[in-house]
Amino acid sequence: MIHAVILAGGWGERLWPMSTRSRPKQLLKLAGDESLVRATVRRIAPLASAEGALVLTGEAIRGAIAEELPDVPLGRIIAEPVGKNTAPAIALAARLLLAEDPDAVMVVLPADHVIADEDAFRAAVALAARAADSPRALATLGIRPTRPETEYGYIRPGAESAVPGVFVAEEFTEKPDPATARAFLSGGRHLWNSGMFVWRADRFLEEVARHLPAVADALASVPDLGDAGFEAAVRRYYDAVPAVSVDYGVMERADGVVVVPAGFGWDDVGSWKALERVWKCDEAGAAARGDAVLIDAERCIVSAEGGVAAVVGVSDVIVAHTSEATLVCAKERAGDVRRVVEELKRRRIVEP
Amino acid sequence: MIHAVILAGGWGERLWPMSTRSRPKQLLKLAGDESLVRATVRRIAPLASAEGALVLTGEAIRGAIAEELPDVPLGRIIAEPVGKNTAPAIALAARLLLAEDPDAVMVVLPADHVIADEDAFRAAVALAARAADSPRALATLGIRPTRPETEYGYIRPGAESAVPGVFVAEEFTEKPDPATARAFLSGGRHLWNSGMFVWRADRFLEEVARHLPAVADALASVPDLGDAGFEAAVRRYYDAVPAVSVDYGVMERADGVVVVPAGFGWDDVGSWKALERVWKCDEAGAAARGDAVLIDAERCIVSAEGGVAAVVGVSDVIVAHTSEATLVCAKERAGDVRRVVEELKRRRIVEP
Repeated sequence: MIHAVILAGGWGERLWPMSTRSRPKQLLKLAGDESLVRATVRRIAPLASAEGALVLTGEAIRGAIAEELPDVPLGRIIAEPVGKNTAPAIALAARLLLAEDPDAVMVVLPADHVIADEDAFRAAVALAARAADSPRALATLGIRPTRPETEYGYIRPGAESAVPGVFVAEEFTEKPDPATARAFLSGGRHLWNSGMFVWRADRFLEEVARHLPAVADALASVPDLGDAGFEAAVRRYYDAVPAVSVDYGVMERADGVVVVPAGFGWDDVGSWKALERVWKCDEAGAAARGDAVLIDAERCIVSAEGGVAAVVGVSDVIVAHTSEATLVCAKERAGDVRRVVEELKRRRIVEP
Repeated sequence: MIHAVILAGGWGERLWPMSTRSRPKQLLKLAGDESLVRATVRRIAPLASAEGALVLTGEAIRGAIAEELPDVPLGRIIAEPVGKNTAPAIALAARLLLAEDPDAVMVVLPADHVIADEDAFRAAVALAARAADSPRALATLGIRPTRPETEYGYIRPGAESAVPGVFVAEEFTEKPDPATARAFLSGGRHLWNSGMFVWRADRFLEEVARHLPAVADALASVPDLGDAGFEAAVRRYYDAVPAVSVDYGVMERADGVVVVPAGFGWDDVGSWKALERVWKCDEAGAAARGDAVLIDAERCIVSAEGGVAAVVGVSDVIVAHTSEATLVCAKERAGDVRRVVEELKRRRIVEP
């Protein structure tokens, strides 16, 4: 059976001040009328039910996430006492699902991505699940790139696997420099690493045992979901494990990694610049919420939440208003919003 | 006796969103720890007591103005039901003061200016009062210009009057073009029209009768301050009079207009650009209130009121945050903030 594993931790600090620790990105309605996390669960439901999903999220926002996902049983929304990146969270999910279903196939989905073509998305997941089932592959969804993005990881697919349309993943390249990214794009072979994975729980745990023994050790003392002492055990687990991404900790080292090339209008909405694509800005700029007044302000990304944002005589900027904060950032500096958040943490204006 | 006449109407829309109709510029603490209107009354007090002052302000903010001016008797804070520019307000004040004191000298002061050297200011007012008393002149304070400002009116002084240091006002020029403003500055003769005036109430009313007969007619049916029906009469008066500035309606036409050249660090804080002078921005920019984070943002004017304003990779901009709104404006476009306010009025976001 296929189970959705929804990664709903973090808060999307590069979208500050629209997203904050208490109003994280996955709870925002960045595309359409539903929050990103709700869309994530709804979108996969035809393949993997909400009732059988596991959601991993931060303690502080667990209540809000649960409210947003009424169809996911509360006990299956697991609070991470501290973020330890993706590998420990996915390993924990694998451990819990395996206890419920020895043939469990997991679809690992970040809760804060945007996907335009949902049928194509599900077709890719179904294809990946087939590869995960029969050659017991570790499958990742690879997105055909549409621009020389330097913030993503890239995967070079090799030979076609036993499952048509599924390819051996030959090489991972994290955040290439601009020239490399342009070469990847023009070469026509490389794919973006979407951070969406499909595999059998038992198969993934084999790789965890091999490449992340500290995680495997810590897993051993986690009881089944709902058992007495479960929450305390999860807390000890997160204390014990190292912070490591599944890409670095498992995918780049494991055997039998395959990639399903796909193009379903995916965007990780990783920074303000992404909203230009998601919101489909017109030439004069776009206003997501509230009221925007633009006078001689071209190619701006404007979000006015619960108020007014006025831009006069300034172009190519991101302008975000919330009742608590204003961000003005040159579009090409969108990545530096993280530096703003760091400074606010340093001044104790934003919690660390 | 000298009486202060404080013009505290309007709200400073070019300082939106820091100033709003309900939080007008004259109530803001733009320089130092007191509001501009409070500073205006305190500054003139050694020459003209708060108890004898008359304050003209908008109906909606009369309560807030009264709270800010506890030493001015409530009955002397007059609500204008509608703004009709400066001439009708000053004429009404002259009418009321004349009834109290046949020798009343009025010092007309806008409530929203900044003055750095208060001793020099009072010396200039005292000198103007001497000219107002003996040759019964209409005196205006002329500021020695420090930049080729195109938003101000200029006065060309001529021959020295009977009072040393006081000069005949030969010509008024409203908002010159940049070349003319530069010529005025380099010529070393022209003065800025500060909008601060000193004259006898009876003498001013003679000129009103001559040049603004509609105002003089309407004045005839206004009773004395505190008489029965005073408020209703003021309301009828404001309905009846035309909107006209004292500069255009009286000063440019009257005889015996003199100017007192002075330099006391005056600023009308007419736009966001003025705050660069008043706040004495450092090279990296200035934060008036709240928290500002500037990364590669030079020569910015930043005001974060009750929140955070972060600016990344954008220079020479005005950034203002309030809980209700954000303004981002190229510094050289500061005058266009008025266009933003017009647009907000059109959309009924800001009251007209």
